[in-house]
Amino acid sequence: MIFTSDNAAGVAPDILAALARANAGAAASYGADEITRRLQARFAEIFEREVLVHPVATGTAANALAIATLTPPYGAVFCHAEAHVNVDECGAPEMFSGGAKLIALHGAHGKIAADTLAAALANYRAGDVHQVQPACLTLTQSTEAGTVYTLDEIAALGAAAKARGLGFHMDGARFANALVSLGCTPAEMTWKAGVDVLSFGATKNGAMAAEAVVFFDPALAADFEFRRKRAGHLFSKMRFLSAQLDAYLDGGLWLKLARHANTMAARLASGLRGVEGAVISAPVEANEIFVRLPQATIKRLRAAGAAFHPWPGAGDGADGHTVRLVTSFATSEAEVDGFLAVARGG
Amino acid sequence: MIFTSDNAAGVAPDILAALARANAGAAASYGADEITRRLQARFAEIFEREVLVHPVATGTAANALAIATLTPPYGAVFCHAEAHVNVDECGAPEMFSGGAKLIALHGAHGKIAADTLAAALANYRAGDVHQVQPACLTLTQSTEAGTVYTLDEIAALGAAAKARGLGFHMDGARFANALVSLGCTPAEMTWKAGVDVLSFGATKNGAMAAEAVVFFDPALAADFEFRRKRAGHLFSKMRFLSAQLDAYLDGGLWLKLARHANTMAARLASGLRGVEGAVISAPVEANEIFVRLPQATIKRLRAAGAAFHPWPGAGDGADGHTVRLVTSFATSEAEVDGFLAVARGG
Amino acid sequence: MIFTSDNAAGVAPDILAALARANAGAAASYGADEITRRLQARFAEIFEREVLVHPVATGTAANALAIATLTPPYGAVFCHAEAHVNVDECGAPEMFSGGAKLIALHGAHGKIAADTLAAALANYRAGDVHQVQPACLTLTQSTEAGTVYTLDEIAALGAAAKARGLGFHMDGARFANALVSLGCTPAEMTWKAGVDVLSFGATKNGAMAAEAVVFFDPALAADFEFRRKRAGHLFSKMRFLSAQLDAYLDGGLWLKLARHANTMAARLASGLRGVEGAVISAPVEANEIFVRLPQATIKRLRAAGAAFHPWPGAGDGADGHTVRLVTSFATSEAEVDGFLAVARGG
Amino acid sequence: MIFTSDNAAGVAPDILAALARANAGAAASYGADEITRRLQARFAEIFEREVLVHPVATGTAANALAIATLTPPYGAVFCHAEAHVNVDECGAPEMFSGGAKLIALHGAHGKIAADTLAAALANYRAGDVHQVQPACLTLTQSTEAGTVYTLDEIAALGAAAKARGLGFHMDGARFANALVSLGCTPAEMTWKAGVDVLSFGATKNGAMAAEAVVFFDPALAADFEFRRKRAGHLFSKMRFLSAQLDAYLDGGLWLKLARHANTMAARLASGLRGVEGAVISAPVEANEIFVRLPQATIKRLRAAGAAFHPWPGAGDGADGHTVRLVTSFATSEAEVDGFLAVARGG
Repeated sequence: MIFTSDNAAGVAPDILAALARANAGAAASYGADEITRRLQARFAEIFEREVLVHPVATGTAANALAIATLTPPYGAVFCHAEAHVNVDECGAPEMFSGGAKLIALHGAHGKIAADTLAAALANYRAGDVHQVQPACLTLTQSTEAGTVYTLDEIAALGAAAKARGLGFHMDGARFANALVSLGCTPAEMTWKAGVDVLSFGATKNGAMAAEAVVFFDPALAADFEFRRKRAGHLFSKMRFLSAQLDAYLDGGLWLKLARHANTMAARLASGLRGVEGAVISAPVEANEIFVRLPQATIKRLRAAGAAFHPWPGAGDGADGHTVRLVTSFATSEAEVDGFLAVARGG
Repeated sequence: MIFTSDNAAGVAPDILAALARANAGAAASYGADEITRRLQARFAEIFEREVLVHPVATGTAANALAIATLTPPYGAVFCHAEAHVNVDECGAPEMFSGGAKLIALHGAHGKIAADTLAAALANYRAGDVHQVQPACLTLTQSTEAGTVYTLDEIAALGAAAKARGLGFHMDGARFANALVSLGCTPAEMTWKAGVDVLSFGATKNGAMAAEAVVFFDPALAADFEFRRKRAGHLFSKMRFLSAQLDAYLDGGLWLKLARHANTMAARLASGLRGVEGAVISAPVEANEIFVRLPQATIKRLRAAGAAFHPWPGAGDGADGHTVRLVTSFATSEAEVDGFLAVARGG
Repeated sequence: MIFTSDNAAGVAPDILAALARANAGAAASYGADEITRRLQARFAEIFEREVLVHPVATGTAANALAIATLTPPYGAVFCHAEAHVNVDECGAPEMFSGGAKLIALHGAHGKIAADTLAAALANYRAGDVHQVQPACLTLTQSTEAGTVYTLDEIAALGAAAKARGLGFHMDGARFANALVSLGCTPAEMTWKAGVDVLSFGATKNGAMAAEAVVFFDPALAADFEFRRKRAGHLFSKMRFLSAQLDAYLDGGLWLKLARHANTMAARLASGLRGVEGAVISAPVEANEIFVRLPQATIKRLRAAGAAFHPWPGAGDGADGHTVRLVTSFATSEAEVDGFLAVARGG
Repeated sequence: MIFTSDNAAGVAPDILAALARANAGAAASYGADEITRRLQARFAEIFEREVLVHPVATGTAANALAIATLTPPYGAVFCHAEAHVNVDECGAPEMFSGGAKLIALHGAHGKIAADTLAAALANYRAGDVHQVQPACLTLTQSTEAGTVYTLDEIAALGAAAKARGLGFHMDGARFANALVSLGCTPAEMTWKAGVDVLSFGATKNGAMAAEAVVFFDPALAADFEFRRKRAGHLFSKMRFLSAQLDAYLDGGLWLKLARHANTMAARLASGLRGVEGAVISAPVEANEIFVRLPQATIKRLRAAGAAFHPWPGAGDGADGHTVRLVTSFATSEAEVDGFLAVARGG
């Protein structure tokens, strides 16, 4: 009953098998190999247009490198106050950008409203040297609150961003979970809504350590490759990063894995609605649940071996607090049902 | 007949198998797992003392992070002019340190002489705010010229560094190759000779993507962990980095792999001495050979399918130039002998 | 009727005269001159203890350099949301610190409450590598809202900061204005309340371009001097910076100038209370007034030649908006009274 | 008999008088004042074309900001090994550029030969992500060895730089001294020879603290203004920086001051040729002399009150060493002759 993180899961068997296959013989290093080359076509097909794809190993690297291509050191990067880039990356975007400033915007359920972005932008005078200059917007899809931006919401934010000349980055650490939740195409959720650069996550959804930075505007990738190398994120044996992504996309594996995770979250959320004292904080639209539970319930669950993280939330106190429950491709129905049985009570 | 790089090789079978084993079940993320914990003891045993070990995925990350812990932004980092950190990492040490300055020292066969370091240090006045301040020394072992510093050479450099309060970093991208070449212990080649932080390489010698930053002085590691996370080099599914290192060290695999690579290089060097017009540039002490070959020989080798990189060298010209030949754990005797047969001609 | 900024004023005559005096003959450069040496004793006397004093030419330099000595690149710097360092320095603290993160705290009238700081600090887990680490607190005295922290308020903030090991910086761009407002000693307003480093402003109060960074803890100054040089803020002809500060402090000139500016602000505020439709936003405790005026009044004032900046405020709209009025050592009673006469209407 | 530095001199009387004049009344801050506006036309006239001019207070700031506009963080900046930016600015270019790499080139008498630059550039493969990328060339005119590049030399270097797409910066800390030495126009010595950005020095030649960054290509200045503010180098009371530059240029004062300094250096050099054991290291073409003197002579000079700095040079040893003698606008014939009398020997 492990619900601490989708990082707690291992590697999907098909992806592990692909690593073994990729190990046959010698290969050109630093991305000049066949598998990496093949990735470009795979992503072009999935996104229905030419793209530039660069694999990296961590989500923090993908985000920080992508953002650094979109902002000068004196730029302002607009994000949600709870965004991973803002609170969980130890200042990586600031480091990679040479000290750009993240502007934290507030909004319910982990989402920025287009009006909120527009209002924040109105505080910045173009060309005023005393102020950092609006440079980019970064959204997380699915969000840190387990919700999913609708296509209209993304498009409205994209329009607000473009109106001021901002670049638009999407942190897709849980891109697949959002995609199957919306039931739309990858193109619709990204470049058709204005996204310029995507951190395409695979690690949380079954890869070992593989993300792709996807550029929809090739010009923006101009300095990305130097930044990646300079940050120590260019792998010598790149084929093993690329093989993960290749297998991840092959035959729709990524969607299958994400669908399973989301289904497990929905099952868990559904069951929690019948648990006395449980209050779910935000709509469960992907594979994360934030739920306030009575202390006694939490204690009982931990005693039964359930693992999960406390998460600061509204209404936390002596009689109950909020916890985060994350499902993954590896979560079983038995785990969910076991958890619910203990939660319901005994 | 692939002699382009030890990066062209894949993963040693035992290490690949370890990845599969590590995939069983869930595990705590970000290094709180069992395999990562076990690494500390493994390294302590190998280095005959307590150490702090932090896995990362690339050599550039290991070097840049280690160096950044040893220098303020206004520090001077002394290295060989041909050092990987100086010419092959696109400025990673500068980025990670916030703009420290690499001071390139010259010396035959990729080695810095202790006298050269001392003379360079004499140019810096302690406390003179106009100058960057000497902060650390970084050596590559084995060197970029395929040679190996002797224990006495390392100790003399360490003494010169310590005399000015410098930190001492070793770039051990090919640590195992140097170790089996010298036939000494890991302790002798590092902390007993004054090394404070080691980039312990495994990728070039059979891992998929795994290096360890080893701190002999725990105080120096104080801010390393924040810097690693901030640079996007903390892996969520860390167990898979650690499993590579664990298998690499298990049962002396690392030494066996390095010994094989060195043996192949020696065999190749030996054979080259009989090739007409071939001039080996530097003593072959590890798994790299730099050899000037006649153009006709080079042409014949390429036609036969041999792969290797040209490498700028003394005496290059119309009638011949220098190439680099790198052997690895995966190089076979047949490859070596085949190469030599073509080189010898006809 | 210039109320745009205390920067619009020129140089106090005594300070200009001191520059001419300082010009006699040759002098050692980069701060080794007599006048600079003398400054140390002057500041020691004023602050009733040994201090380390380093002149720079701008407030942004003073703040950014001071903050950079108090935080690692992965540090969190707590400040008011409206703080100059946060909104008016184009990211200077981020640049000088190598990408530290400013955490914007809210509070009425430009002030942070100690509870607000404590609550913010509670969000950070010491040693959690995913988060930037609390490193320092910076307060502006007098504040950007024209108010002044009381000694108790500073001490409470200092205590909250020290409880988490934070360094404590004070941006004293209008230090003298706050000091004469409180009627306390410089020691009471700084180190006795926990301040570690002070940006001691003189430019806004009659100097040409001179600020002093004052270290109460000499250990904190360890790397300041290198950072200053590296940032291009070490003056070759330093005597001319030091001469400004020397004359500024001589015979209490600084207090006299600040007292005048504050008196003019009080006179202006007092008169504004009789202006129809005028609403002063915050207590007028130093030399800045933020006042909402009817549009007709603003129009009339501008027509009469009064100069001032609009300043976004609560209740701004079609019928009126907020403006900032700043007085200085050079503001005359006639200017104030003339402004009021026009504002009142007639 | 002060020959330590042109920084030891004070301010030329006309410039001091201009500061007093500039102090009349209020003025717009941050460069929106009349004197600053006037500067643009002054420089346009002097350089015979439209330019963008931005005053700063120190040469280090001018250089580091100019270079940072010409290079990405992963850029290579080519300079002479002895260049001020390379050895006397504590890493300022590295800080301002976000970690670009200075590539030190060697050449006699402080000069880089065009062939040397071309050879160095040949080591860099465009687009090779492992290498920093050639971004700009920076020359010092007059050089750190007291010599002056000829127009042909500058043009040849400019051509070599442009052939690889490099930006071209000139560190003109002693621009006027070089100009009167060559007897050419400012246009000839800069943009007509390919210079894109100039650090136009005034401080060493009679200003208090004033330099101008002059952009010949307006597009290059695009982000300069943000970088200047962010580095704390935008002065609030800018009129006092601008007034120095205005007076410096007025009526050819700058050329008069430089001519005097050069004349004094020539007189000193001429006299030194008659001093037994004196060996001048480099052609004396501006206002600096590097001369090896017998120890006894040095001792005698110091005893007589002459001030100058030792400077490491070829042939230094027990019987003599090299010293640097710098003349300025304030050096008198009497000082020179007095120095020579003592040197010749008593």
